[in-house]
Amino acid sequence: MKKTLVDLNCDMGESFGRYKLGLDEEVIKLISSANVGCGFHGGDPHVMRNTVALAREHGVAVGAHPGLPDLLGFGRREMKVTPEELKDYCIYQIGALKAFVEIAGMKLQHVKVHGALDTMARAHEELTRAMCEATREINPNLVWLAHSGSRAVRIARSMDLNVVQEVYADRAYNADKSLVSRRVPGAVLNDSQEVGGRIKQLIELGTITTIDGQTLELEYDSICVHGDTPGALEIIRTIRGTLADHDVALKPMMELI
Amino acid sequence: MKKTLVDLNCDMGESFGRYKLGLDEEVIKLISSANVGCGFHGGDPHVMRNTVALAREHGVAVGAHPGLPDLLGFGRREMKVTPEELKDYCIYQIGALKAFVEIAGMKLQHVKVHGALDTMARAHEELTRAMCEATREINPNLVWLAHSGSRAVRIARSMDLNVVQEVYADRAYNADKSLVSRRVPGAVLNDSQEVGGRIKQLIELGTITTIDGQTLELEYDSICVHGDTPGALEIIRTIRGTLADHDVALKPMMELI
Amino acid sequence: MKKTLVDLNCDMGESFGRYKLGLDEEVIKLISSANVGCGFHGGDPHVMRNTVALAREHGVAVGAHPGLPDLLGFGRREMKVTPEELKDYCIYQIGALKAFVEIAGMKLQHVKVHGALDTMARAHEELTRAMCEATREINPNLVWLAHSGSRAVRIARSMDLNVVQEVYADRAYNADKSLVSRRVPGAVLNDSQEVGGRIKQLIELGTITTIDGQTLELEYDSICVHGDTPGALEIIRTIRGTLADHDVALKPMMELI
Amino acid sequence: MKKTLVDLNCDMGESFGRYKLGLDEEVIKLISSANVGCGFHGGDPHVMRNTVALAREHGVAVGAHPGLPDLLGFGRREMKVTPEELKDYCIYQIGALKAFVEIAGMKLQHVKVHGALDTMARAHEELTRAMCEATREINPNLVWLAHSGSRAVRIARSMDLNVVQEVYADRAYNADKSLVSRRVPGAVLNDSQEVGGRIKQLIELGTITTIDGQTLELEYDSICVHGDTPGALEIIRTIRGTLADHDVALKPMMELI
Repeated sequence: MKKTLVDLNCDMGESFGRYKLGLDEEVIKLISSANVGCGFHGGDPHVMRNTVALAREHGVAVGAHPGLPDLLGFGRREMKVTPEELKDYCIYQIGALKAFVEIAGMKLQHVKVHGALDTMARAHEELTRAMCEATREINPNLVWLAHSGSRAVRIARSMDLNVVQEVYADRAYNADKSLVSRRVPGAVLNDSQEVGGRIKQLIELGTITTIDGQTLELEYDSICVHGDTPGALEIIRTIRGTLADHDVALKPMMELI
Repeated sequence: MKKTLVDLNCDMGESFGRYKLGLDEEVIKLISSANVGCGFHGGDPHVMRNTVALAREHGVAVGAHPGLPDLLGFGRREMKVTPEELKDYCIYQIGALKAFVEIAGMKLQHVKVHGALDTMARAHEELTRAMCEATREINPNLVWLAHSGSRAVRIARSMDLNVVQEVYADRAYNADKSLVSRRVPGAVLNDSQEVGGRIKQLIELGTITTIDGQTLELEYDSICVHGDTPGALEIIRTIRGTLADHDVALKPMMELI
Repeated sequence: MKKTLVDLNCDMGESFGRYKLGLDEEVIKLISSANVGCGFHGGDPHVMRNTVALAREHGVAVGAHPGLPDLLGFGRREMKVTPEELKDYCIYQIGALKAFVEIAGMKLQHVKVHGALDTMARAHEELTRAMCEATREINPNLVWLAHSGSRAVRIARSMDLNVVQEVYADRAYNADKSLVSRRVPGAVLNDSQEVGGRIKQLIELGTITTIDGQTLELEYDSICVHGDTPGALEIIRTIRGTLADHDVALKPMMELI
Repeated sequence: MKKTLVDLNCDMGESFGRYKLGLDEEVIKLISSANVGCGFHGGDPHVMRNTVALAREHGVAVGAHPGLPDLLGFGRREMKVTPEELKDYCIYQIGALKAFVEIAGMKLQHVKVHGALDTMARAHEELTRAMCEATREINPNLVWLAHSGSRAVRIARSMDLNVVQEVYADRAYNADKSLVSRRVPGAVLNDSQEVGGRIKQLIELGTITTIDGQTLELEYDSICVHGDTPGALEIIRTIRGTLADHDVALKPMMELI
């Protein structure tokens, strides 16, 4: 059946004190779900309040985007944490953001883990379980947002979490449905026309072409975009145009389950 | 009317990673309410989980004990934060602890601010308001725990918060109901017999004798104790003995309003 | 006697991890001395290495720019630290930067304190002394860079430090030679022509006109500029043009003592 | 030839702010070299000053004990840092400590890396090289202290560093000269008599018996001890007694090269 609704998600609220990151004020107008930094890898209490307010103003749903306690590395460096530690880091961060969301009169929609946590989830099932447990214990109705076809999706489902699968619009894929490492040339797509073409293929055929030319079927209800460069804004606008051309409307992921 | 119930509160959960502080495992058996560190001045996510579990095991009610973002100074150094910053620091910390408390099947009972925040509250009404707003926005039923007769009590009441007033068992008082600075000799009472005598006077007459010999009437529903030295444990046990001798039972502050 | 040499100093190296601040790569080409962040309020070890390398490449002298341990507040919020704590914070930061500078084959030139430390120095003589002691103990030949005519200048001189006085090119002055607070309209000058005019007056007459129209004589060997906005670059270029028009050449402050 | 001199080294200065760790005031009287925390995994500027002063008072030589930027994990959790990042973290920390040491009128003697850095050094040659480069660039005369017979020893020697090899008095060994993991029963020796026996064997025969009963020859000029429990103090005293019984005197490692 033809897809008529999809979610667009983007990381935001990753500024810290005087340090500004991302074009949140612009991006927020273009997406339906925001993954908001929770103060460990990026974001701070004041940024969290402002980002939630921004999301509310623009009718965008809010999810937690917890990371490793490594501001210096922006949560992008794997750390050998135990599942128990990681679970508690997630509860702490999700709980903190949930307070800001509820004070703003909204409901926390989802959880999407940041940076190295995503990488670590791929390799360590017990860490994925720990993060899913944190999510479920905070609220069993929270959506767990994860890479289409990934092990994290299967684990989260086995734990009865609401799962939404996402596809990355501007990243190349390997044949095993993983993202091509940023260190490999061609991993990040900067050309908005090319990204638009991929989205067209995704909507019409439900497939992505991998970096080595294979055709991959991917289930998804959300498309992940980035918003930290002016070029990224252009890409998001192209994606939205492509979606509109195909009569696909934007909806926060919660409404797509 | 003779007092038959009182709350005993104590700071705990202020360890951090490998750094251990306080005799929480002993103190928890002796009190009715725990003020739990929230990760800024002390405490970390794992410590928070364990402290909440400890409180639950011993039937002790849990409150948030937010502090300044100054782990190096243990939250004891005043910082020129704005009311907006401070409000968000409190929401973040209280929200994070609330998540652990609710996951443990309990309800967050109260908020008591830590260290320099307490000092700053005395001098800056707008900062007290900011902290009270954070508390009220998280949950208007949360108890605001503050020094008996202080300006923070008046401000919190004017904002319709549930206020519980506390007396410090082991600290000397000035005539204006403030605590004598730790830098003044005699500010901290280390003799359990002397503390016991003060508690006796407080129960029987509702008064405290100030450091300069005046008699001060103090309303209270909670007595604050400390638990970071073996001597402190002896003092708490003496206080409990004195309360028992006067048929005063312990109850978490929530049940005393 | 007509001034023929002057130093231009600017803060840099205040990025942190993924967070970029300032236009260091552009500014470095325009100045003679760099005040380099040391990791407390901004800067990190990797940024420090890169900033020192940049300075070396462009023949710019390096000074330490220590701050309060408050990354979240960018070192701009006063903290009630003791002189002993502050002295050790300065030694730590200056020592760390000195290592990078010496490894690059250079000599650390000066110390200029950051943000709230500067404000605190004005009000608390014992804190200024603590910072000067740290500087002197690291190396008695280090230059102490401070506001022209300030108490910090007098204190540093009384402690036998090499002092260089600086004037702020883009900030309004009060009659007591202090900077007008950023909260006051007109405190920051954004118009490069206006700044150029002030520099002209400074070179020709050795005076600055205060915000309330008085004429102030200011001794100086360095002019402080800012480099965090494209407009700031324009201002620095105007200052350099004005200096060139008056045959004033740039020299690192060390060579002006 | 019979050994007549040996160094005893111990980690210290790992307290942080209000958090106290270790029995430094006691241990310092019993050792000849102190590995001093540098503020990343433990230690802070004030603790560093005090620890250096303590070492000076007792004629103990000082080395830097740099760690990962992970105070929450006490530097014991591996982090995927790059060699470039790690080198700069080491320069920063060694440089900071060196300042305190030189201000105290001493010379920095050695570098010994902490916790997970030690583990990571075993697995990643390029990280060991990065740490050795940092040490050499700070000062090529600094001693590199490492496990007897380890790869880090070979790498450091190939880079022309002064290497001192150490044996752990209170830890069990594997046949490949690595320490038995703390998670394995018997990894840590708590019985002072047993440790004394091992030291006797080491002095007399130059060998250690591994956990599986093999005899291992180990070159060494330093013995590493721990000082964070009262039992640890007893062990150090026993070691000193055994050394004295064999007419082996203590000397800082620098004097043994």
